Amino acid sequence: MAMNGAESLVRTLVAGGVEVCFTNPGTSEMHFVAALDRVEGMRAVLCLFEGGATGAADGYARMADKPASTLLHLGPGLGNGIANLHNARRARSPLVNIVGEHATYHRAFDAPLTSDIDGLARPVSAWVRTGMSAREVAADGAAAVAAALAPPGGVATLILPADTAWEEGSGIAPLPPVPARARVQEEAILHAAAALRSGEPVLLHLGDRAVRGEGRRIAARIARKTGAQLLAMTSNARIDRGAGTVPIERLPYPVDPARAVLEPFRHIILIGATLPVAFFAYPGKPSALAPATCDVFALATPEQDQIDALERLAEAVGAPAEAPLPASPRPDLPGGDRLDQDAIARVLGALIPEGAIVCDESITTGRNFFPATHAAAPHTWLQLSGGSIGLGIPMATGAAVACPDRKVITLQADGSALYTAQALWTQARERLDVVTLIWSNRSYAILRAELANVGANPGRKAIDMLTLDDPPIDWPSLARGYGVEGRRVETLAQFIDTFRQALARRGPFLIEVAL
Amino acid sequence: MAMNGAESLVRTLVAGGVEVCFTNPGTSEMHFVAALDRVEGMRAVLCLFEGGATGAADGYARMADKPASTLLHLGPGLGNGIANLHNARRARSPLVNIVGEHATYHRAFDAPLTSDIDGLARPVSAWVRTGMSAREVAADGAAAVAAALAPPGGVATLILPADTAWEEGSGIAPLPPVPARARVQEEAILHAAAALRSGEPVLLHLGDRAVRGEGRRIAARIARKTGAQLLAMTSNARIDRGAGTVPIERLPYPVDPARAVLEPFRHIILIGATLPVAFFAYPGKPSALAPATCDVFALATPEQDQIDALERLAEAVGAPAEAPLPASPRPDLPGGDRLDQDAIARVLGALIPEGAIVCDESITTGRNFFPATHAAAPHTWLQLSGGSIGLGIPMATGAAVACPDRKVITLQADGSALYTAQALWTQARERLDVVTLIWSNRSYAILRAELANVGANPGRKAIDMLTLDDPPIDWPSLARGYGVEGRRVETLAQFIDTFRQALARRGPFLIEVAL
Repeated sequence: MAMNGAESLVRTLVAGGVEVCFTNPGTSEMHFVAALDRVEGMRAVLCLFEGGATGAADGYARMADKPASTLLHLGPGLGNGIANLHNARRARSPLVNIVGEHATYHRAFDAPLTSDIDGLARPVSAWVRTGMSAREVAADGAAAVAAALAPPGGVATLILPADTAWEEGSGIAPLPPVPARARVQEEAILHAAAALRSGEPVLLHLGDRAVRGEGRRIAARIARKTGAQLLAMTSNARIDRGAGTVPIERLPYPVDPARAVLEPFRHIILIGATLPVAFFAYPGKPSALAPATCDVFALATPEQDQIDALERLAEAVGAPAEAPLPASPRPDLPGGDRLDQDAIARVLGALIPEGAIVCDESITTGRNFFPATHAAAPHTWLQLSGGSIGLGIPMATGAAVACPDRKVITLQADGSALYTAQALWTQARERLDVVTLIWSNRSYAILRAELANVGANPGRKAIDMLTLDDPPIDWPSLARGYGVEGRRVETLAQFIDTFRQALARRGPFLIEVAL
Repeated sequence: MAMNGAESLVRTLVAGGVEVCFTNPGTSEMHFVAALDRVEGMRAVLCLFEGGATGAADGYARMADKPASTLLHLGPGLGNGIANLHNARRARSPLVNIVGEHATYHRAFDAPLTSDIDGLARPVSAWVRTGMSAREVAADGAAAVAAALAPPGGVATLILPADTAWEEGSGIAPLPPVPARARVQEEAILHAAAALRSGEPVLLHLGDRAVRGEGRRIAARIARKTGAQLLAMTSNARIDRGAGTVPIERLPYPVDPARAVLEPFRHIILIGATLPVAFFAYPGKPSALAPATCDVFALATPEQDQIDALERLAEAVGAPAEAPLPASPRPDLPGGDRLDQDAIARVLGALIPEGAIVCDESITTGRNFFPATHAAAPHTWLQLSGGSIGLGIPMATGAAVACPDRKVITLQADGSALYTAQALWTQARERLDVVTLIWSNRSYAILRAELANVGANPGRKAIDMLTLDDPPIDWPSLARGYGVEGRRVETLAQFIDTFRQALARRGPFLIEVAL
């Protein structure tokens, strides 16, 4: 039997290095599903909801530095995946989104599931193509992989009409060349070096690859020589951190503290970071956070080779060799019995195990987690990147698929968790080693603050819209519903004890932390 | 204090007859939320997930015949609502979608949540507008209400930049005129009448308003005179049915039975129905279901006045007055102990209470529910309209908000329920009188059949992708997580007993029915 389009596509994806498909398939994707049977090397991970699939693919990409694929069902399936595709887009995660579509000849009949899939895909995709024939669809898939990997990394969406899957295909298509990250111009290095030599206060604002680990080491050398300061973006796709790494703080989320942090600087050099801007607009507050008198200069965009740019800048300013970092002792567990944000931060600092991957969608609860965990055991921290809530549990799922030997810890705001809690089921099904900590404050706490920030004057009905305590979510029951064991803790001692037990065992576990 | 844009908009919506807002707000919508406080007449119903809000607005509109509004948070919030907006679009439900957006001047800064909201909205909306100023936004809202109500009814999406909400507004804007449904041309009546007099077999294929109740009565008179047969579409937004109404069967979902049903006819007259087409394409099977020799004629499109067209057609063929329907006894409860689809159908026929609203997302389990419930107590049946699964629980939520005095019964496939189960929480919060029956077959049963239909030859990995039993979903636990009491039943006697108890009490209850 000749190889059909679906099998040609799956074999092409595998040949292109795509090893995992996070699926939520429907009828139009049945040939793709059947092809997964016949092809070695593609792990299929079933998700109950498409936001779980796209968020998992994002988490996978952040850890594996290569794309997973998704398999989604027509426009509505893509629609359910859009929120986490938005996050993936902002994290610049490479991701190959396969979206089933009606057979090419069937679309004109406007059957109930027909919709403008291309139109839905464009706002969240760096690359979109609709397969035109089974003969070409493998080449389309290869182009999608290349597009996902092209710097800075992005969402490539291939729309797959059913007949392009079931008709005779071409066999494996070769991967087009993937361009390397471009080197920055020498002028940019010189401009940054001049700023660093100016004697005026300089901030090295790091994002993307520059903030991960290696970039921070080089940036620290530059800082040692020049007195510049380092700062990460508010949200970062991935930071490898903890003891033995260069500690870095983040730009605060609220506008006024963020402006206060940036206020002293005359030069802000962006390396992988984008312009510091307010997450939201507020009446009477500016959108741009840097002082008007400040020279904000992009040394290296996310598309460019940020590590190379840092190395050249280090050389240009005559930065010394890497200095040994001062030894910082592992934080102690907190005493007392207050179970609050500070206590939680200290528990994390003390208990995060070496090699852990921390998936952080803590929102308000987690704003002070970074300082307390600088000296935790070495670990990787992934953040909500695009502000689209409901990423944490799916992202942890994908990170655990990418790194089966590393403990994954999800720091999860309760309101946000409720968008995509179905991903707990995939954690149970795949026996993933994930501990989910739910910050159970039973409210949209961030919105209570925002309501004040925008100057709105709320009454009972408005407050009611931000409150989740009637009825309260029973998280251990919800987790059990999805096949995951869970427990609610209400004291600091219970939290420490239960978290330790969860870290000591393998497999998914959920802890509802009463706040 | 002058009225800001948000308050002007909310007051305009209320003046336009919009009484309910299904909300899942974020920061950019805080002024709208605050305005809800100051305005009487708009009930705010909080949802944990945007698909719950849009699906609830659809269910509300089907029962109230007027729009609810939603309140969604930027592009990702809209994204999460898209699947059920697709269903609303296919049901032609009037719906005013309010989507928050960054302040107009803030968009250029490309903050993390920035995305092309207009681009995401267009595929699921009949009307899209982005507010340009606080002065105009009330008029925009009035235009949205009018657009939602314009025949045949549709999704109107108003994108609301935060500054158009917080700056000074215009006060209430008047509702533009809403056009009535157009009368069909006399030629169309004559053409249909000629077909009915031809002596050849004629099908009156009813959809939209023509299938609800009144239209079926007129169609039955035409049928009595001419021998024509009546048939509903496969999916129908709303049918008022049960004892004392004209029974009508639906076009089967699978292609071969559907073609067999249509095969005898030489004329198919569409009244509110669209062309009968296959839901999906299959290798070697046609997309159009009517025989090639058949004259398919649209007497009245969904945009047109279908009741008027039926009345004029009845007159043209000299149809008799309405005949009393033969009394059909309430179905008996099934005997035996088999808990299968047939037994469930008979239980529904026997126990559906008078005035109930049945929200049907049964998928495979429910294909034979109609015949067994023709003679049930009078009730209203709402179906999944656009094939985008995850509508049932939200739709029931909205229907219950629209009709607080009617019992709502959700017939819910388990796989589909897992997309939007969060809506159970809104049922608990609002004390809605909804009984949710989960058909727990622990698989994507429809896809197992489809895998065979498309001629794919599945192996273990493919079958595994369609199986939900590892781990099994524990539905009573999941419901408890959301604050809803639930029970699993495994025998017919347990089902009958538990269903009766659930019908006898008020408030949300969930029954997992083991299949």
